[in-house]
Amino acid sequence: MSQVFDVAVVVGSLRKESLNRKIANAFVQLAPASLKLEIVEIGDLPLYNEEHDSATPPASYTSFRERIRRADAVLFVTPEYNRSVPGVLKNAIDVGSRPYGKSAWNGKPCAVVSASPGAIGGFGANHHLRQSLVFLNMPVLQQPEAYLGGAGSFFDEAGQLSEKTQPFLQSIVDAFARWIEQNQPR
Amino acid sequence: MSQVFDVAVVVGSLRKESLNRKIANAFVQLAPASLKLEIVEIGDLPLYNEEHDSATPPASYTSFRERIRRADAVLFVTPEYNRSVPGVLKNAIDVGSRPYGKSAWNGKPCAVVSASPGAIGGFGANHHLRQSLVFLNMPVLQQPEAYLGGAGSFFDEAGQLSEKTQPFLQSIVDAFARWIEQNQPR
Repeated sequence: MSQVFDVAVVVGSLRKESLNRKIANAFVQLAPASLKLEIVEIGDLPLYNEEHDSATPPASYTSFRERIRRADAVLFVTPEYNRSVPGVLKNAIDVGSRPYGKSAWNGKPCAVVSASPGAIGGFGANHHLRQSLVFLNMPVLQQPEAYLGGAGSFFDEAGQLSEKTQPFLQSIVDAFARWIEQNQPR
Repeated sequence: MSQVFDVAVVVGSLRKESLNRKIANAFVQLAPASLKLEIVEIGDLPLYNEEHDSATPPASYTSFRERIRRADAVLFVTPEYNRSVPGVLKNAIDVGSRPYGKSAWNGKPCAVVSASPGAIGGFGANHHLRQSLVFLNMPVLQQPEAYLGGAGSFFDEAGQLSEKTQPFLQSIVDAFARWIEQNQPR
């Protein structure tokens, strides 16, 4: 039996009706049998403070780090806030990266999908995040790039993904599955 | 009598003994008579969620936005986390920028100082922040650039700023004072 990879999905918006969360849920559905995607919540992580590292960390820090550490790969799905990564998502990245030398992200293959109702599709957030991924030593899927503009029209009123968008999202998650297989730690 | 400008200082680290906080405090001391610098705390701002905008916002959001709105200028002093802006600071920026169309940051002249114990001096954080400042419409001091590397040696054991570093910090805050005067909203 072939391996099923555990993929932690981190969504950069806390809003319940977030477009990015809907897109993340679409990926959960579209994922091939070799991947099991699960959204990992980041809304209860207190703002990172290095003082937490020398004392008992908040319980939410510990469980978040353990969940990421357990994952074989990470999928980031994020809006853009002020032409960059939402503070909410960057805080989760900072929390997962510490204490120094014990980053939970280290070596995990990942992909970045950004989405917005506007035309630019979160490009600013997408590439700022990629700069952090260099330091975090996370091999990141290069193609297809995913700057999902006009994302307000991706879902109908019943929440169903449009047939126009589905093939592109499918191509992303399929390419990501190959990327994960290629980039498992040896 | 000439005008005294109110400068909100936003520090990107929550640690009490933070190097960046020490540098911010040094700027408070070095500021010319035309500036009054005050550190504005960001550690109690809950992670931004757009749902807050449609209901009653957290009290800390309201007071932070009012404090920034009252300021004539903003000085950012920040470390780099994972080659970018700390989530803590980006969250404060996101909070201040909302609700949509009512950004507290709009039009305020600002300066960015980044500092780290290492060699790069927070360059990654400094320039990621500058990308957000474009969108936020905050005229930002260009020169002198301030990537303060080796910042662990700036203060002696008594917390006194070294004589070697003081002139450069002075040149930054003096240039910033001129920048603020030039860039007041008309």
